[in-house]
Amino acid sequence: MRQLKVSKRIENYLEERKILVDKALKDFMPEPSGLAGDVIKAMNYTLFAGGKRIRPILCMAGAEAVGGSADYVLPVACAIELIHAYSLIHDDLPVMDNDDFRRGKPTNHKVFGEAIALLAGDGLLALAFNLMASCGVEKKGEKTGLLRVIDLISSAAGYKGMVGGQVVDISYEGKDADPTVVEYIHTHKTGALIAASVTAGAILADGNEEEVGRVNRYGQQIGLAFQIADDILNIEGQSNVMGKGTGSDKVRGKMTYPSVFGIAESKNIQNRLVRHAIESLNGFDKKAEPLRDLARYIIKRKL
Amino acid sequence: MRQLKVSKRIENYLEERKILVDKALKDFMPEPSGLAGDVIKAMNYTLFAGGKRIRPILCMAGAEAVGGSADYVLPVACAIELIHAYSLIHDDLPVMDNDDFRRGKPTNHKVFGEAIALLAGDGLLALAFNLMASCGVEKKGEKTGLLRVIDLISSAAGYKGMVGGQVVDISYEGKDADPTVVEYIHTHKTGALIAASVTAGAILADGNEEEVGRVNRYGQQIGLAFQIADDILNIEGQSNVMGKGTGSDKVRGKMTYPSVFGIAESKNIQNRLVRHAIESLNGFDKKAEPLRDLARYIIKRKL
Repeated sequence: MRQLKVSKRIENYLEERKILVDKALKDFMPEPSGLAGDVIKAMNYTLFAGGKRIRPILCMAGAEAVGGSADYVLPVACAIELIHAYSLIHDDLPVMDNDDFRRGKPTNHKVFGEAIALLAGDGLLALAFNLMASCGVEKKGEKTGLLRVIDLISSAAGYKGMVGGQVVDISYEGKDADPTVVEYIHTHKTGALIAASVTAGAILADGNEEEVGRVNRYGQQIGLAFQIADDILNIEGQSNVMGKGTGSDKVRGKMTYPSVFGIAESKNIQNRLVRHAIESLNGFDKKAEPLRDLARYIIKRKL
Repeated sequence: MRQLKVSKRIENYLEERKILVDKALKDFMPEPSGLAGDVIKAMNYTLFAGGKRIRPILCMAGAEAVGGSADYVLPVACAIELIHAYSLIHDDLPVMDNDDFRRGKPTNHKVFGEAIALLAGDGLLALAFNLMASCGVEKKGEKTGLLRVIDLISSAAGYKGMVGGQVVDISYEGKDADPTVVEYIHTHKTGALIAASVTAGAILADGNEEEVGRVNRYGQQIGLAFQIADDILNIEGQSNVMGKGTGSDKVRGKMTYPSVFGIAESKNIQNRLVRHAIESLNGFDKKAEPLRDLARYIIKRKL
């Protein structure tokens, strides 16, 4: 009974926050116009193709956990979603994962062609930093928090994060199972930006170093758990819910937690990570409840 | 005789500054190591494939023109070169311009494959913002100058700048000559980042708004002149000096100033732009002499 209440509470929370993020993204994004209108259209296409907005929601929840306001960090939260959208477009390209569908819709390059898709990804990445640098979110009147956040997020997006994870992901397709490698892929490709999202919220809301450190540990743990859950969904999920074929990781010889550890042990690992994530928030009051709910949700979701 | 002296002076200046930039870039760039070592190697490959370092040199000269120091803005100057290198890698990809050689060397994807090249470009763009956000360059003790510069440079890199120019460049291949379109392509694809480079220097060195505005106008004019000069070199240049075939723009049906206006009128336009650029600096003292020399150099260079 309590379980049901928790799951209903987080569903309502996610729905309400998703509306907030979608509205803000619409306000921030340019309308397609002018000679370069096609690339703006392509940028908008993937950004509004039905994402769950987990990263911006985590950023806002990270701010609230340390006593800040969700609205205040919304521009940075949206910028992070732009980075996520860029990574999806580039990952789906034929030279990378060569995916034709995502969330039930044709991928960006299937609609706009590879050249525009490549540029749309580039454009989203540049625009994310533009949005962060120009949004005027300040930390106690200074703007040092924003620079620290740009530092953190650009690091998570680059070779120390997503780019590093993606290069190892594609390089190790079809290779022998290796626990070190799969952990590297998941913590870099997915975990780094998720951890940066929630940590950015805590930094911008002026959390102290102890709080920021704890939120960051929470983020690293749920970031890895999130990708393990994705791996499991790729096997057990329903393709009509997920909008793309299940079993695609196996066909490609992707190194995943289930392929390295088996399904049962992968579930143990993700459950342990979520438990540790919630423990990282010890000492936080009820304002951190959304983060705790989100940690539980991340491994229970169906898509 | 005076002409000879000026050209010798600018050559020495460029040589000396290039050494400074190359050394700083070596310090800033990570060594290839770890599981993602390949992508770091690919990032370094194009970054150290023999660029002239015009953009970082302009950034430093912009700082000096308003009384600042070149060393002080060096991290941001280097970050701009990373963005330039990223744009070269993505532009050369088969889905874009499909170039096999640049500066006499195989292009990034010919050496590392398309997937790594794509990611190396992404990694350089993210690292550029990382370098800017973390370099600690401040404006009078605040960091507002740095946020303004990240705003400016990310705008020049995105759909309002390079990405916008590139999408129009490839979309209009083979189309009828159109002065509006070719100006759009050149001011966005090349001009925007060049203008942002020199303007960033002036902002970080605490130039007043009048000075920053004048330096920015200078940058816009030489940015366009630079690309027109490139177009002309693509016809008149020697391929052994440039390291790639001449006439490639024509083969591809690229819209260029010579293809729209003819060579003679293109030379008139670039000369006029350089004259106006130098006039934009009226009121600046001899500290702006390198900017004046650079404007003249940009249309006289052989590669």
